[in-house]
Amino acid sequence: MSAAADAPFDTDSPAAVRRAIREGRHRGFTNLLARRHVQGNLMIVPAAQADAFAEYCALNPRALPLLGRSEPGSPFIPALGRDLDLRTDVGGYTVFVDGEPVDTPRDITSRWRDDLVAFVLGCSFSFEAVLQAHGVRLRHLEEGNVSAMYVTGVPTRPAGPFGGPLVVSMRALRAADAIRAIAVSQRYPLFHGEPVHLGTPSLIGIADLAQSYGGHGLTQLHDDELPVFWACGATAQLAARQAGLPLCITHHKAHMVVTDLLVTDAASNPLCEADL
Amino acid sequence: MSAAADAPFDTDSPAAVRRAIREGRHRGFTNLLARRHVQGNLMIVPAAQADAFAEYCALNPRALPLLGRSEPGSPFIPALGRDLDLRTDVGGYTVFVDGEPVDTPRDITSRWRDDLVAFVLGCSFSFEAVLQAHGVRLRHLEEGNVSAMYVTGVPTRPAGPFGGPLVVSMRALRAADAIRAIAVSQRYPLFHGEPVHLGTPSLIGIADLAQSYGGHGLTQLHDDELPVFWACGATAQLAARQAGLPLCITHHKAHMVVTDLLVTDAASNPLCEADL
Repeated sequence: MSAAADAPFDTDSPAAVRRAIREGRHRGFTNLLARRHVQGNLMIVPAAQADAFAEYCALNPRALPLLGRSEPGSPFIPALGRDLDLRTDVGGYTVFVDGEPVDTPRDITSRWRDDLVAFVLGCSFSFEAVLQAHGVRLRHLEEGNVSAMYVTGVPTRPAGPFGGPLVVSMRALRAADAIRAIAVSQRYPLFHGEPVHLGTPSLIGIADLAQSYGGHGLTQLHDDELPVFWACGATAQLAARQAGLPLCITHHKAHMVVTDLLVTDAASNPLCEADL
Repeated sequence: MSAAADAPFDTDSPAAVRRAIREGRHRGFTNLLARRHVQGNLMIVPAAQADAFAEYCALNPRALPLLGRSEPGSPFIPALGRDLDLRTDVGGYTVFVDGEPVDTPRDITSRWRDDLVAFVLGCSFSFEAVLQAHGVRLRHLEEGNVSAMYVTGVPTRPAGPFGGPLVVSMRALRAADAIRAIAVSQRYPLFHGEPVHLGTPSLIGIADLAQSYGGHGLTQLHDDELPVFWACGATAQLAARQAGLPLCITHHKAHMVVTDLLVTDAASNPLCEADL
């Protein structure tokens, strides 16, 4: 391993994190890096399906809040990061062919095509730092986990070939923390906004918390904890599989797109205008 | 009964509601009247205990958010209503002598003394109309109930002779409505803000939901409902009883002080400044 490969990097800087990933110096998940900055889900589809996918996002904004979309054939979205290269700057990818996962590479330069369009969608990792700043205890982080995900029985609104169930992320929170997390997260619609459910999992079609999607995260609740569920961008992965696209590439697990956008710039309060 | 006693009144107008109460034309609870306007808890104590009570409120703002305080000997708080007379305009009163309830009159003109000080404190009735405007179903209202109250095991912060447990109001809400209610109510710190608890009642010392304070309200949950608990101004009544004041007068049950303040003017978002 070269000296460069061992070099530490500024874990608060999105550009430094992307460079470390690109150069193979960071191979882990991104959820605890560059926490003042927005992270996103990656979804790459052929141009022929891009407009349908954009419509699917617009119909399901809680799960799929659009942060950016590339021009056809371009792996760049400059508004999200000046040097961002979506072929090399995400720590892991899943390649789907005809709806089936066929590869999980660390770089998709050789897979890139002139007709691909990349979408970046909001991710709940972006508000976890905000929650902690507000004193919310996130036990899954203390225990070295990412948040658990579940496939629900709640259908999304379909568009073109895209459809399927809503996927959610779950955080095990004590009641006072659940209340605070709801109050805080509703101000961030670009990161899925407030939860879609809390309490009894079966009411949204989750039969067993021990069976998480992907097998990650806390699945055991303490007696004083409630499961709190947010809509999740992994909804797009299930939709892509169901659509059986000839080619689709997503981020892999908790390797997200690290952008230059500031989390605080995404704060808004959609309730203000809806009030009495 | 005279023609005047039968006359209908403008149930949206705080002044008309107060006049109807004063003239004996409205004898019911106030929770469904003048819903765009703020209602409050009433607490009247001798001047000798007034500063200690004000301090008690300041130390427990979630339960006892101060809307107004009269000058010693004055039954008026003009900022809350130009014609408001606290001796005649509240539909029911409880008189406590040495901490014991001795009378529940509809008028306290004969009880008024030159050394009494009146406090008006925020009430969750003020946000119930806002919750409904946001689509939150309040089953207790549909069923003709006021919200249930409970004495918790959570201590308040004492001041002078005042102390004792926190009292809470409870609303039975489906998960999606609980989430929305939290997001909305956190914007109204003058009406107790966001809930203090939801889910398992025993975690805040409530052994049995069927045993509500005062015996009012919904106490049976449906399978898809969570109990959601807000701090409640009735906390002051328990503190007054524990303090054993020689004289103390409060509103009785759900007969509240109807003010001219607009609910929407009380909206704020305490999270905005506390953010990252």
